[in-house]
Amino acid sequence: MATHEPTSDGVMSGAAIFNSAVTAAAINAAHQLGVFGRLERDGHLEVRAFALANALHRPTLEAILVALASFRIVELDDGREKVLPGPCFAEISRLKGFFYWLIGGYGEILTNLPTTARLAGRGGDVARRDVRAVSIASADMSAVNVDGLFRSVIESLTFDVCADLGCGSAQRLITMARQRPELRGVGVDVAPAALDVAATAVTAAGLASRITLVEADVSTLRRRPDFTGVQLVTCFFLGHDFWPRDRCVRTLRRIRAAFPQAEHLLLCDTHRCAAVPSATDQIFSLGFELTHAAMGQYLPTIAEWRGVFEDSGWDCVAEHQATIPAATVIFHLRPGGVS
Amino acid sequence: MATHEPTSDGVMSGAAIFNSAVTAAAINAAHQLGVFGRLERDGHLEVRAFALANALHRPTLEAILVALASFRIVELDDGREKVLPGPCFAEISRLKGFFYWLIGGYGEILTNLPTTARLAGRGGDVARRDVRAVSIASADMSAVNVDGLFRSVIESLTFDVCADLGCGSAQRLITMARQRPELRGVGVDVAPAALDVAATAVTAAGLASRITLVEADVSTLRRRPDFTGVQLVTCFFLGHDFWPRDRCVRTLRRIRAAFPQAEHLLLCDTHRCAAVPSATDQIFSLGFELTHAAMGQYLPTIAEWRGVFEDSGWDCVAEHQATIPAATVIFHLRPGGVS
Repeated sequence: MATHEPTSDGVMSGAAIFNSAVTAAAINAAHQLGVFGRLERDGHLEVRAFALANALHRPTLEAILVALASFRIVELDDGREKVLPGPCFAEISRLKGFFYWLIGGYGEILTNLPTTARLAGRGGDVARRDVRAVSIASADMSAVNVDGLFRSVIESLTFDVCADLGCGSAQRLITMARQRPELRGVGVDVAPAALDVAATAVTAAGLASRITLVEADVSTLRRRPDFTGVQLVTCFFLGHDFWPRDRCVRTLRRIRAAFPQAEHLLLCDTHRCAAVPSATDQIFSLGFELTHAAMGQYLPTIAEWRGVFEDSGWDCVAEHQATIPAATVIFHLRPGGVS
Repeated sequence: MATHEPTSDGVMSGAAIFNSAVTAAAINAAHQLGVFGRLERDGHLEVRAFALANALHRPTLEAILVALASFRIVELDDGREKVLPGPCFAEISRLKGFFYWLIGGYGEILTNLPTTARLAGRGGDVARRDVRAVSIASADMSAVNVDGLFRSVIESLTFDVCADLGCGSAQRLITMARQRPELRGVGVDVAPAALDVAATAVTAAGLASRITLVEADVSTLRRRPDFTGVQLVTCFFLGHDFWPRDRCVRTLRRIRAAFPQAEHLLLCDTHRCAAVPSATDQIFSLGFELTHAAMGQYLPTIAEWRGVFEDSGWDCVAEHQATIPAATVIFHLRPGGVS
């Protein structure tokens, strides 16, 4: 039953936008409740048994599954007893980290947007992001496309000691340490909660002797014994926090000074789009830009990034563009004067 | 730049779902900040002046407008200085109450869905709806299509005294009183906050001598002097609160007893769809069903509604189907035994 008037070609109806907003929340919930994981592992899911085993409220689980079914992410039988992957399952399962990021990480900010958009409503505690969700989701999002790109970038680089700034749960370091048996790593993060998760993961991976974790704010970073010998510095999805420009210049200089033997800085970030992003073709920018505007966080364009390196003591020797998330680049930087 | 793999025909990409969720929040914010109202009135909007006049955080306003522009709801010039209505403006402006309902009313419930879906996370104060937003949005949503249907239904009915159960801001009564100079009305609502809004609106409309407001819970309603002579009882978007069935039967009997002279009960509600709703064609059901499941509120199907009237002392003499919201019916009931 078509209940909306037709819109211009290629543009979504109000019903499709509304239903997508509902389904985005359902995707995040299904992800957190283990629905995607179970379907990936077993290829099917029995609603009653799954609800029972996971102590879930069955009507809510059913409504979540109905939302997924309406977008053909899953197939749900008439009795709502059995779930199978639908034609869109593979795509959405691959992108589920983006929905965790948006709804789990920034849901409160999106809901409270009318308040935070008013000068009178800003500041205070009116809307917060869930730092833990953002950190876990960032790793998920990175895994879709950026991690592969990163692997190909570092393949030709020679290094035995690596530091990851904003290491979060230390997954990047753990992956690298597994691939390079000689590698020593240092993870730096400002959030004690992230470092707790990282410490557990490093220990579980049997890498405690090779990976050190350091609590520090990158914007006030100083040289320290742990940093001796670091040849490669990586910094993923943190760089926009360095801005505005003057502060970014200072921070990048600090990084150079803190790691005097660093030969490479791989800085990966999503930049602001100069043009209006596409409604249907590219994932991330629209959410990234809106939530950061609401938080009062300046986002540089790619031109602004390009214009900051020289003043910061770094040469940009290459740019590697990710396809997902959109507008995401790995800048390959080397200390200024080294070619 | 297409960054997603193709999905089945007619099914939305992950990017389109993600961006829609962002834009749904932007639509709600733009509505609350007066962007739609200004564009409807003036046909254009200057970003700088609008931000200044309304004390808005300009980067957040801009990001909201970018989200609307990416869905062609508005057109934004390259300098992001001037806004015009886009090809989708009229449709989204008409439907904006649905986005206020979803994000403003139920945003917190959608964000906290992973918690409320767990039995351990239910109860307490983990997620609340914004009752005020839901009440105002319901009036907006009703105005799109249901109000016109209601007018056509009551056109042929004879009545001088009307009671509206769950009257909210009393808009339905005020509209009716303006159209029928002889009409007296009684508004019944359980929420003192709603009755405050209603009292102000009734006074502003110069209808204080003709419209009475009563604070009462419909499920425990009793006969009272204000109800004497009521010939028409209306009850819009409240009926699902009467369920489960036993409780609904009792409530409908109470209504009949409380209004012994009532000749008509017009009960309008959105019912649960037996099938999975369409992702793109119909607005409301997906959000209505998911949020009510999360709140633990049972929603009857249309078959369950049809099966309850006779036991409740009412005959259903007609069903009038709304097109928007989907799955919404005005049941025309008459006291049992009267034909």
